[in-house]
Order: sequence, then C-alpha cells, then structure tokens
Amino acid sequence: MNDQDERLARATINLVAEPGDLRSLGLVRELGPTEFLRVLRTRPELREEFTAAAGRLASVAPQQVLDHAAQRGIRFVIPGDREWPAQLDDLAGAGVLQGRGGVPVGLWVRGPLRLDGLGESVAVVGSRSSTTYGDLVASDLAAVVGSAGRPIVSGAAFGIDYAAHRGAISAGAPTVAVLACGVDRSYPAAHRQLLEHLAEHHAVISESPPGSSPFRIRFLARNRLIAALARGTVVVEAAVRSGALNTTNWAERLNRAVMATPGPLDSAASEGVHQLIRRGSAALVTGGEDVLEMVGASGQDLVAEPRGPEEPRDHLSVRARQVLDAVPVAAPAPSESVALVAGIGVMEADRLLAGMEEDGLVELCPTGWRVTRLGRT
Amino acid sequence: MNDQDERLARATINLVAEPGDLRSLGLVRELGPTEFLRVLRTRPELREEFTAAAGRLASVAPQQVLDHAAQRGIRFVIPGDREWPAQLDDLAGAGVLQGRGGVPVGLWVRGPLRLDGLGESVAVVGSRSSTTYGDLVASDLAAVVGSAGRPIVSGAAFGIDYAAHRGAISAGAPTVAVLACGVDRSYPAAHRQLLEHLAEHHAVISESPPGSSPFRIRFLARNRLIAALARGTVVVEAAVRSGALNTTNWAERLNRAVMATPGPLDSAASEGVHQLIRRGSAALVTGGEDVLEMVGASGQDLVAEPRGPEEPRDHLSVRARQVLDAVPVAAPAPSESVALVAGIGVMEADRLLAGMEEDGLVELCPTGWRVTRLGRT
Repeated sequence: MNDQDERLARATINLVAEPGDLRSLGLVRELGPTEFLRVLRTRPELREEFTAAAGRLASVAPQQVLDHAAQRGIRFVIPGDREWPAQLDDLAGAGVLQGRGGVPVGLWVRGPLRLDGLGESVAVVGSRSSTTYGDLVASDLAAVVGSAGRPIVSGAAFGIDYAAHRGAISAGAPTVAVLACGVDRSYPAAHRQLLEHLAEHHAVISESPPGSSPFRIRFLARNRLIAALARGTVVVEAAVRSGALNTTNWAERLNRAVMATPGPLDSAASEGVHQLIRRGSAALVTGGEDVLEMVGASGQDLVAEPRGPEEPRDHLSVRARQVLDAVPVAAPAPSESVALVAGIGVMEADRLLAGMEEDGLVELCPTGWRVTRLGRT
Repeated sequence: MNDQDERLARATINLVAEPGDLRSLGLVRELGPTEFLRVLRTRPELREEFTAAAGRLASVAPQQVLDHAAQRGIRFVIPGDREWPAQLDDLAGAGVLQGRGGVPVGLWVRGPLRLDGLGESVAVVGSRSSTTYGDLVASDLAAVVGSAGRPIVSGAAFGIDYAAHRGAISAGAPTVAVLACGVDRSYPAAHRQLLEHLAEHHAVISESPPGSSPFRIRFLARNRLIAALARGTVVVEAAVRSGALNTTNWAERLNRAVMATPGPLDSAASEGVHQLIRRGSAALVTGGEDVLEMVGASGQDLVAEPRGPEEPRDHLSVRARQVLDAVPVAAPAPSESVALVAGIGVMEADRLLAGMEEDGLVELCPTGWRVTRLGRT
C-alpha cells in the first residue's frame, strides 16, 4: 500500500464516519484504514453500528473530494505524514467523553502553518458570551504566550476564542482555529474575515470534510482536538455549563496543563472557571507569564513572584523596626522613652537609632528623636 | 498560688513585655508566670534582652490597671480561665513570623461575648484600601458564614475588616474585633461607632493593655491572634504586600484553613489573593457556602456544585442527541437523511425520533422531521 492508497482510504473513512466516532476510529487504529474499509465493504452486517457508514460508502467520492480540496489549497494531513501532530495520538488511550473520542483518521488543513509546529502550542478557550473583561484577559494572555513563540489554538467562536486569535495576531504570533465544520466554511459567518486571515497566514483545521455543517455533536468532537493539540489549555471565562469545560475535561484526561483565569465573583461568565479552580481541576493563572511557566519545561520561564515596591524599612532588622515603630511622628521623644515603648534596652536603642539616622529614617531634634518623611513610608 | 496571684503575675508581664515577644512568652510557658517574674526581678542581668522589661517593672501598677479596667467593663482573660480560647495554645509550637510569636500571657476583653465560643469562628481579613467589589464580597460572605452560627473574627480596620464586621452584624451574627491597640481605644478613630457597638453586643479583644497605642509591630503580633482564634481565615482582597498575608501565613503555619476569594485580574487589590491561590497557599472560595464547607467537619455543609439550568436534551442518550443534532431546524428532512448525517442506521434513527417526538423535541411534518422550539433550547 503506498501513501496515496492510505490517504485515499482514510479520506473515505472520514467521509462516511462522523468525527470522533470512537467505534470507527478505534477499529481504524486496530485494523488499519484499508482493512477497516474492507470489512465495511464486505461485511457491513458484522456490527449493527456500522451499517450507516457502510451505506454511505456508495455515495462518496473520496478522490474527487481530495482533488477538489487540493485545488482550493486544502490538504488532508494523516498519521505518518511529516506534518502530522503526533500529540494527537494520545487520544488513542483517552477514552470517550460525551460520546466522542479517538485519534482522527486525518485532518483537513487550510493555511501555510504546519501542524507539526503545534507541539508547543497553548489553547485559549472560553465563553461565547464573554464580557469585555474576559476578552481583554484572553487577548492579552494570547499576545504574551504567542510572543514567547508558542502558537495559540482556539475555535474561532464568538467571545473568548475570537479575542484569543486577535491577541495572537496583534502580537505577530502564529494562531490556529480548529473548526467543527469544514475548513472552507465560515462559522460563525461574522468571523469570515478572521477565518480568511487565518487561512492565509496561519491555519484553519477540521476533522470534518470540506463542506460539512457545524452540527452540535461535532463541537464536542472538535473540543478534544483543541485539548490534544496544545500543551495546555487556558479557560478565560466559562459559565457553569460552557462547552469550554468539555475542552478542559479532555485536557485533564490527556494530562495536559489545565489553567484558568479568575474573574469577579458576581460575573456568571467566571462561575465555571472558579468551579474548576476550586475543585483542583485547573491551576489559577493571572496572565501569559503564568501560562508560560506552567507549560514550560521545569525551571523554565519561571515567573518572578509579584512584589510590592520596596520600602526603606525592608532592610532593617526586626529590632530596628521595633525601635522605628516606637519613634514618634510628631513631638520628638528622648531615647529612654523610645526604648521603653520598643521594649528594649536604652543602649541598644541608641545604637539602632544612630544607624537609622544615617539612613535618613529618623532625625535627632533638640528634644529627642522623630521619624523623618522617609521613615514614615 | 491562687487564681488572683496568677492573674496579677500575668498582668504584670503583659505590662512590661511587648505583645508577641516570643522570648518572654516562651519563658512564661516554660517557667510559669510567677517564676518568670521572679527571674526578671532578681536576675535582670541574666539575659540582656530582658533588661528593658525588668526596668519597666518598677513603673507599672498591675493591680491598679486590672481594677481600673474592671471598672470600665474590661476583663483580663488568662489561660486556665473557663473563657480562655484553648486554640490559642497552638501558638506555643508555631514559632516566629516577622519577629512575633508565642501564646499571649492573657487577653484584654471588652464585651459580652465569651472567647471560648470562638472555636468555630472564621476570620475574614483583607486590604484596608479595598474596592467596592471587595467590600461587597466580604460583607456577603461574613453574613452567610455568620448566619450559619460561626462568629466572624476580624481586625476592625478600614476596608475589608469593616465590611466583614458589618456583614456579620447585618445578619445578626456574633463578630469580634482583635485590635493592635488597647480595647479602650478607637483605632481607626473613624470606627469608634463600630467598636462601641462591638464592645456592647459582641467583643473587642487585645493582647496590648488598655491605653496602648497601635504601633506597627503590634499589628504583626495581633495578626497571629486572628489566625489562631479562627478555624480558618478568608482573605478577600490583598495587594501583594498586604498585612492580611501575614495573617494567612500564620493560619497556614497553624494548620488552619486558608481561603481566598478571587477578583478581576486588573485589580491590584486582588493581586496578593491570586498569588496565594496560585501557589497553593489558599483555597479558592466563591462565597460563604464554600467557606462553610471548608471549615466544617468532613462531609458537613457540602456545597451543591453550581449547575446551569436543565435542558430537555440532558435526558437524552448520546445517540439520541446525535440524531437530534442532525434534525434540521428549518426545512424538514426524511428519516433516511437524518440517519445519514447522524451516522447511524435508519431503523435506530426512526426509533429514537419517535421517542423524541413523544417528548416534544421533534415533530413529523408531511415532508419529514423538524426540530421543535423545545428541541432547539
């Protein structure tokens, strides 16, 4: 069997079986595409669930579909191709979620970006009905992660998906849309321009053949690809029943990093996200830097813990601070009274006061010690 | 030694040593208050760090302070008293943070609430410069936790502390302020009314004797008491260098539950909180119900996971959903074409369609099947 036979067999299966139909995909992995097709053709009665697929065999023209796709710049990438994103093979042992699962027989791709470059990518997903806040978070995060050289994977939907693609584009970073419909269709229609841009400069991917409609069940199949392609998935906003949580379920099952950005507690759009973090299914990230640390190799891209501005008192010993806290702000006081309030000996207090005077934190007036403006901050 | 001798000895130590001075407090626990006092009186040169405390012995009048306090309704509660909050003894083995630590020799208390009722309390702390959002979260959370019978402990400061006390009061729940100054002082002055209310109906507590000023170092000593008194500490808003994080450090060290409420990522007031959650030092909570679950006995006060509204399709099998997703919304289609798109056999599709017709999700028109309004939701 040469490459073209395998490609044709896989295209045929792709045209007769639904995306993410694990019964078909599982047998394809077990028997190989050609043998699976032979069974489908010769023994359609063998398994009741294959009768529909077998019935469609007569009505599909895979070579024609491949040729027509190629003419429009759409390629069908299959396992074994150099471009095949090997991380998708992890789906083989990952079971079923909401009735979908398995390694796709192939992926339809439109655009110059090669899929084997997605091993270090990060998925950014979330609510279609996002808030302005969520859009901003998604877009900033995607820009930071993209600028670090990691492609951004998302689903080209309204809301967070759109913001994530836009963020990557604004940073000049590669970004990929995985669709539930054919890569030649614009869904949602309002994102035609975005999809055309991605197809021209990046890539648009689908498990469904060109021309396919975006049925609801295909979104569930699509979500597993987003999770499997990327090194980690970030949910930016998600209501309690958001489809984005289907994606994180897949990411969790595939041992990918699952991350989530928090939001205001009074925003329903963040409820699902908080639930994820609360039950330990997702790590809280506050932006792109945190994401890079999470998906990077251990010890790489470590984020500097955010620190407040340094204060002069930071460099003082505990006892010196104790003395400083006992020096009056208004009316000056003699060393003896400062020492008393600080609860330490007068000699030690005098020594510490002298040191702090050098640092400009306290000053000695005719009637005693007083805190300076610097010492007060 | 009778009770009054012990109380007097402890009051004496309290008047000469700073709150949270572990060297004194540790020796008091080791030697007992009377023996510690004897050492202080007879061998002040024994340890250089005690000379200051020893020097103050002559100038304090503990019995007079106790009497004067009692006249103003202030009691000095010490270990061994029935009212003593035994959970504070955990501070004995908890070491030092920022130079402060140890079990207090006693607590000055103003108000009718008994301290031994604080074993089930929850501390709510956070930024002094809180946002309206944070105030709302703190106050709602305190009201829910307080209504469940758990006293709310806080520090009577501006911002989150104030909102927490108010929330508890609005719910008719007990609430306690732990101060860094004497319980007879109003700090901040703007909270005089709040403190008077707490002193009349609840309790105001301090490790510092009546009349003490709120020196900065005393806040650090105070924070350990808030953490130790409560079963768990919730931080609502905290900048990266907030004092509230000193309280959670204590709570963590004392094996108390540490919780935090998230907020918008663009709010500096939530930065410290996100940092806590991110590094695993605090559990994310979304409100009072989550807090009750965290601090309750295992299996108690379990929160129902938030769920979106039920949809008719929730009750369908995966295959039925697959069929429903393949039924057109506009122009009706015959069973054969529905089965084809759904990727299942015609007989099975017919059976499933009939079931969904009974549920009102699809309807049979002259030219085929169509989704109903109900089936679309």
